[in-house]
Amino acid sequence: MVTQPRPQRPRPQAGRPTMDDVAAVAGVSRGTVSRALNGGHNVSGPAFEAVQRAIRKTGYVVNQHARSLVTQRSDSVAFILSEPQDRLFEDPNFNVLLRGCTRALGEHDITLLLTVAGTQEDRERIGRYVTAGHVDGALLVSDHAGSSLLQELKDRGLPVVTCGRPLGHEREISYVAADDRDGARQMVSYLRSRGHRTIATITGPLDTSGGVDRLAGYYDVLGDADPRLVVSGDYTQASGEVAMEKLLRQVPDLDAVFVCSDLMAVGAIAALARAGKRVPDDVAIGGFDDSKVAAASTPPLTTIRQPFGRISGEMVRLLLGHLSGEPPAAVILPTELVVRATA
Amino acid sequence: MVTQPRPQRPRPQAGRPTMDDVAAVAGVSRGTVSRALNGGHNVSGPAFEAVQRAIRKTGYVVNQHARSLVTQRSDSVAFILSEPQDRLFEDPNFNVLLRGCTRALGEHDITLLLTVAGTQEDRERIGRYVTAGHVDGALLVSDHAGSSLLQELKDRGLPVVTCGRPLGHEREISYVAADDRDGARQMVSYLRSRGHRTIATITGPLDTSGGVDRLAGYYDVLGDADPRLVVSGDYTQASGEVAMEKLLRQVPDLDAVFVCSDLMAVGAIAALARAGKRVPDDVAIGGFDDSKVAAASTPPLTTIRQPFGRISGEMVRLLLGHLSGEPPAAVILPTELVVRATA
Repeated sequence: MVTQPRPQRPRPQAGRPTMDDVAAVAGVSRGTVSRALNGGHNVSGPAFEAVQRAIRKTGYVVNQHARSLVTQRSDSVAFILSEPQDRLFEDPNFNVLLRGCTRALGEHDITLLLTVAGTQEDRERIGRYVTAGHVDGALLVSDHAGSSLLQELKDRGLPVVTCGRPLGHEREISYVAADDRDGARQMVSYLRSRGHRTIATITGPLDTSGGVDRLAGYYDVLGDADPRLVVSGDYTQASGEVAMEKLLRQVPDLDAVFVCSDLMAVGAIAALARAGKRVPDDVAIGGFDDSKVAAASTPPLTTIRQPFGRISGEMVRLLLGHLSGEPPAAVILPTELVVRATA
Repeated sequence: MVTQPRPQRPRPQAGRPTMDDVAAVAGVSRGTVSRALNGGHNVSGPAFEAVQRAIRKTGYVVNQHARSLVTQRSDSVAFILSEPQDRLFEDPNFNVLLRGCTRALGEHDITLLLTVAGTQEDRERIGRYVTAGHVDGALLVSDHAGSSLLQELKDRGLPVVTCGRPLGHEREISYVAADDRDGARQMVSYLRSRGHRTIATITGPLDTSGGVDRLAGYYDVLGDADPRLVVSGDYTQASGEVAMEKLLRQVPDLDAVFVCSDLMAVGAIAALARAGKRVPDDVAIGGFDDSKVAAASTPPLTTIRQPFGRISGEMVRLLLGHLSGEPPAAVILPTELVVRATA
């Protein structure tokens, strides 16, 4: 885990320089300063540059626009979700992450712009926008390995922090992740400790760090599990249902399943109910996330809690660090077993 | 209803001019053109201007960055939701509107940036961002009367289209709205036609056009209704529950309620169930929206369908019209009664 001081933004001083001071230093009229601050229409190139120099020299800060002129910043950050839009609304994790990032950025007076990159076309368009100087940096959520978007942002030097390990870019890109592998170990060890012997898993997408690392944690505890015990989903409820049906066909006598997201666990429980299996009496279910659906599920889910509040806070902290010139860092946050009724 | 031709954007031609053509016309090297296209670092002011002129003259279009240089456009539009973030996730209407607008803008290769303006501070910050040249226009959703944001966008000349009538700005700001008043008339007339005599209403916020116009439609049909029959909510499910409880205290013998959003109707049904009232046998319920929750509710809601797909398509069409210099327009779209099981 890497820590670093929280970057501070300059604050306006009492007795600060006025627009007249800027005009005097620049050798132009107050009106010219005002027009320069409002976009530079009807201001000659040299006068515009003189105003910029005078702003820097005097330390004049009248408002955000003037400040942007000096700092070349837009005071905005893109929150890029690399998933189809419906996932944004289906998966409560995104709401929580988004709220946390919005709040943390708001404390620094920075606007969060949400963009949803569900298709390759979207990703290209958004990549063009965010690298054209309209945002100061990007928070990349749910990116998949081999994504051209992360590569483009990196190539163009945009400060980026990813949520989850950026597979293949771990050394160059800052990221914040829950300790997925350890969380998986905790859950599978718990299932074993409850006497379950045929423990299957429904994984997340295996081109994401969450998918890869939670599966690794499963293998850490169970060693060389029967490959028929491992089925992949895409974190959606629907994929959990389909995966559970497949597991029941492949291993009818399974007695527990570690499901790598709460939404998939809800789907798996629905599939088990259709198959006449009781949870947890016939099949125990362990989820992952401790999202809003975990406590609301019937029965309430035993799961692994991801510290979403801390994840979003750390993402913003790392990104602001980048903007102050700090090198990349990785932050891994601990996960925690939450026992409810499904295991 | 106002119609206008769909604006067309120029498309690249076969045999189009190359970067070398631009360099030749500008009298600079190809490298200078390339650097100018990539932000103008290490390009002198005169050379930069020569490249810009040459781009216009040759009609060269290499990519979005180059095009933005010529058009001064960012090829992005802000979708500004003037509600707390949780509303975005609670109310399925926003998902549908957002998806429609994203799709319609995508057809024109324009990026949608979602911003959530839940507080006055958010609105000020977002106002600064969107008027600083980072977006070409804004789609304003769920704005309330007296909002400083709409005034600021208007004052600074940003093209804006609102969803719903912009109260107090109807003549200067383009908007798209469902025919709320007629929808309300349809529902209340239907409730009357079913024999109900004590018809209450739970209104939306009365500083929004939807709130005002649906209440006006209610009065159109019922004339001077007893004021105890009218209680306001804020479109959320929770507010529908509270409002229904209040109505039951004020008018215990009511036999029908026109509830001005489906989410509030779901809340009202929950409150009726707690009070031991059956829907529709004891109290008939009519909703508004025909959102996702209408068909999923128990019992399924009789409601008024808003044409969300058309609303988002028309909002984008009007905004693109603005960008092409067209004057403001209003588009009012018809609503439709959908009879299910609650009335």
